[in-house]
Amino acid sequence: MEGVLTPEIWIAVAEKTGLPELRRTTRDEPDYDKLMHYRLGILEQHNIKLSDIQNVIGTLQPLPGGREFLDALRALVQVIILSDTFEQFAQPLMRQLNWPTLFCHRLLVENDRITGYQLRQPNQKQQSVLALKSLNYRVIAAGDSYNDTAMLGAADVAFLIHAPENVKRQFPQFPPVTSHAELLQRIKLEL
Amino acid sequence: MEGVLTPEIWIAVAEKTGLPELRRTTRDEPDYDKLMHYRLGILEQHNIKLSDIQNVIGTLQPLPGGREFLDALRALVQVIILSDTFEQFAQPLMRQLNWPTLFCHRLLVENDRITGYQLRQPNQKQQSVLALKSLNYRVIAAGDSYNDTAMLGAADVAFLIHAPENVKRQFPQFPPVTSHAELLQRIKLEL
Repeated sequence: MEGVLTPEIWIAVAEKTGLPELRRTTRDEPDYDKLMHYRLGILEQHNIKLSDIQNVIGTLQPLPGGREFLDALRALVQVIILSDTFEQFAQPLMRQLNWPTLFCHRLLVENDRITGYQLRQPNQKQQSVLALKSLNYRVIAAGDSYNDTAMLGAADVAFLIHAPENVKRQFPQFPPVTSHAELLQRIKLEL
Repeated sequence: MEGVLTPEIWIAVAEKTGLPELRRTTRDEPDYDKLMHYRLGILEQHNIKLSDIQNVIGTLQPLPGGREFLDALRALVQVIILSDTFEQFAQPLMRQLNWPTLFCHRLLVENDRITGYQLRQPNQKQQSVLALKSLNYRVIAAGDSYNDTAMLGAADVAFLIHAPENVKRQFPQFPPVTSHAELLQRIKLEL
């Protein structure tokens, strides 16, 4: 989702709050749990509440062409977005993307204070691909970062899109594409 | 899907083609394979092609309130439609419903002649619920007919909606609701 269909939510939050420490993403830190505890610590330290972050997310829009790409894809195949974001963060963007189905995680919240997060399960993107394959679906996956690579490895067909050089170098088995149009074309050739 | 969000496709086809034999649905015949072979035999006998049926389906609209119900539900929870219809039939209706994710089957087609059908897997509705539960989702399911009852039994919470008397009598363990509004209300109470 983030970096492919929508902006990176944490980077937007970093910009709007003036806290550059929040710019770290899974592209920089492959250990997701470490990254999240780091982020939540910064929020706590600066007294930033869930509603503050939701206000920021409410000002974001999908990436240019993201909605059109997703609309075209949904007319061709069944689509599920697998993301390590949180339901509480994703909603304003999902609304703008026409409510695609999204499998992700949930934040733990007490009185508007983010107290922690609940991973739905470890490796949920990869597990979701395996579950869809168990339902006899042929799965085509695309992603841009470290936390996508287990998912890409589990899929029948996999692409990197908008991936940084270090990810492309480390995972040469996944063909890289550079635009929504190219990804759509590659997917059509697989149908 | 059919009978809840959209009209019964085969009944519409029966009406438009003037072939009342096609009115049988899973509400009447619980054995799905038997029902499908019966239907495909009638199409063959009357030389009805896939494009003929697609033309009929193109004239259908979702049931009154179906789109609005689905929109409201998608703003609250993740939604996947589980149906024993076929991708080739469902598309014109899915477009009108804003492309919800749909798990269903595929027809086998040669030169516009429907030669058979491919069940993605036996008991796919039930298997889909089990797969979602394996991903640590709590599943709320609703359906109207015999081919929904295994799915309803596998779900964490289950409702019958618009179900005929024989189904309600045979499956008293699933609370019946009579409208989209009532179903939405019952689902909200479970969140």
